[in-house]
Amino acid sequence: MRNKNRFIAVIGGSQASPKEIGLAEEVGRELAKRGVFLVCGGLGGVMEAACRGASSEGGLTIGILPGENRREANDYVQIPIVTGIGYARNVAVVKSAQAVIAIGGSYGTLSEIGHALQNGIPVIGLNTWALSRNGNPDNSIITAQNPVEAVNKALELIED
Amino acid sequence: MRNKNRFIAVIGGSQASPKEIGLAEEVGRELAKRGVFLVCGGLGGVMEAACRGASSEGGLTIGILPGENRREANDYVQIPIVTGIGYARNVAVVKSAQAVIAIGGSYGTLSEIGHALQNGIPVIGLNTWALSRNGNPDNSIITAQNPVEAVNKALELIED
Amino acid sequence: MRNKNRFIAVIGGSQASPKEIGLAEEVGRELAKRGVFLVCGGLGGVMEAACRGASSEGGLTIGILPGENRREANDYVQIPIVTGIGYARNVAVVKSAQAVIAIGGSYGTLSEIGHALQNGIPVIGLNTWALSRNGNPDNSIITAQNPVEAVNKALELIED
Amino acid sequence: MRNKNRFIAVIGGSQASPKEIGLAEEVGRELAKRGVFLVCGGLGGVMEAACRGASSEGGLTIGILPGENRREANDYVQIPIVTGIGYARNVAVVKSAQAVIAIGGSYGTLSEIGHALQNGIPVIGLNTWALSRNGNPDNSIITAQNPVEAVNKALELIED
Repeated sequence: MRNKNRFIAVIGGSQASPKEIGLAEEVGRELAKRGVFLVCGGLGGVMEAACRGASSEGGLTIGILPGENRREANDYVQIPIVTGIGYARNVAVVKSAQAVIAIGGSYGTLSEIGHALQNGIPVIGLNTWALSRNGNPDNSIITAQNPVEAVNKALELIED
Repeated sequence: MRNKNRFIAVIGGSQASPKEIGLAEEVGRELAKRGVFLVCGGLGGVMEAACRGASSEGGLTIGILPGENRREANDYVQIPIVTGIGYARNVAVVKSAQAVIAIGGSYGTLSEIGHALQNGIPVIGLNTWALSRNGNPDNSIITAQNPVEAVNKALELIED
Repeated sequence: MRNKNRFIAVIGGSQASPKEIGLAEEVGRELAKRGVFLVCGGLGGVMEAACRGASSEGGLTIGILPGENRREANDYVQIPIVTGIGYARNVAVVKSAQAVIAIGGSYGTLSEIGHALQNGIPVIGLNTWALSRNGNPDNSIITAQNPVEAVNKALELIED
Repeated sequence: MRNKNRFIAVIGGSQASPKEIGLAEEVGRELAKRGVFLVCGGLGGVMEAACRGASSEGGLTIGILPGENRREANDYVQIPIVTGIGYARNVAVVKSAQAVIAIGGSYGTLSEIGHALQNGIPVIGLNTWALSRNGNPDNSIITAQNPVEAVNKALELIED
């Protein structure tokens, strides 16, 4: 009896633009409609918007928190994981997911993208980082044009 | 709209005696009957028995794993958290709960008891460690005689 | 060319009695005299006293800090490791040592004793915790009567 | 009596090209000549080359290891820190330094760059990642043309 639940992480900044908030909320709704469990860092901004979207469709939301108290979770996190390990929790956010959708984001999000790619976990990007190395583009972040496409691509890439 | 979910951790060895397995399974069932979410380290022995008990009553089970892969979770974990941080994840197991029930257990369980007490999280013990310091007994581990009493005591101690 | 350096951790509370401070300082001096590198959690109390003792004899001191800033290290730490992972750093303190000397200590120290014993790292105790399980004493913590005996026993137990 | 020691991290892949190995070794030598302590992840490739370079000039080398055993350190690590927390140790590598020099590197290095920039720790790059966000270049990684320039820039940026 193997766990058949599917887990997708939404990563992005705790400070986010209105556009990013809108994208995150729609990604959250879309994941919930497909019955996918949402993993995130549990705080504000993109994380909160994604949880709000998922909650509005009755989805399950998991927030892997950096600090010492479940009260730091946003109001839409149903399962707060209190790690107490600070931003080392970024590793657990991506490893707990089968695919990652990155929306906007700053350097914390960049670290999560690095950890995901290092672990072979696919990363779908919406208005987020682009990478090059030694002058050569690195196309490991899969670009999506909109939330529905991002969720579709993420689901396609989840290994069976 | 604050999270009203209640979280109790069950800790104990991945190697466990038949008696400990029985205690853990009954604790799991009892938690599920009360609508409490079960947190554990996600592996075998006491952790698996508690998850099996909770699942048999339709309860929610969260396994905070030490390793790199959700497949190391026991079959009754519904929400596997893949930390990749080894036994440093013991800290997250206890911090993610409002009270801890320790059943049997070896040195890993002892480390979790230490982390819980350091954080002011109440620990209820069933056939587990007893402590003394400089020759004086330390009664911080609250003894219970059976699983129902353990769950009752844990619920009483959860702060509102 | 394998690393021949020897590493012993001194663990104990950041709040400590005058007696514990005296013991820790003497353990630190004794380690330095034998050319052993001192590992600790880098904060005050027992940790600071041990580092002060080691420094007074020209020894090397390593402080594995829980927080975000090397300034939280005591004044006698020469090598501050800034983990940012909170008390999950307790695992790194004991794993970075070949033997552990526990002096007094509260629940954080208890968690470190648990992590050390779980990893097969010998623990020598000076006025610290005693353990029993299911009513049977557990003698894994090796008792020493004084700092010199503690250091002698620790060195004997370091595997070649 | 504050700690006056200076700590600079060298980050890069455990798989590295001959050019990257050469750069890392020269960075290590240069740090040692200036009396700066070298922090790294303790493994092979760029990390080993930097440690070898530092050792050849009598410098101090610190390796913050992901795994469970000091034996995984390269032969030129004098102070192995055994974290047992896997690649969450990347956070500790950058936080333990006052500046970071990135040489080549893959996704693990990218995660370290993200963690460093998130924490306001300056990153100097030699043949490494370049970043852009939403189509706009992000110039937070300070480019250096050679090892001496990288070390010079890192030292200038260390806060007093």
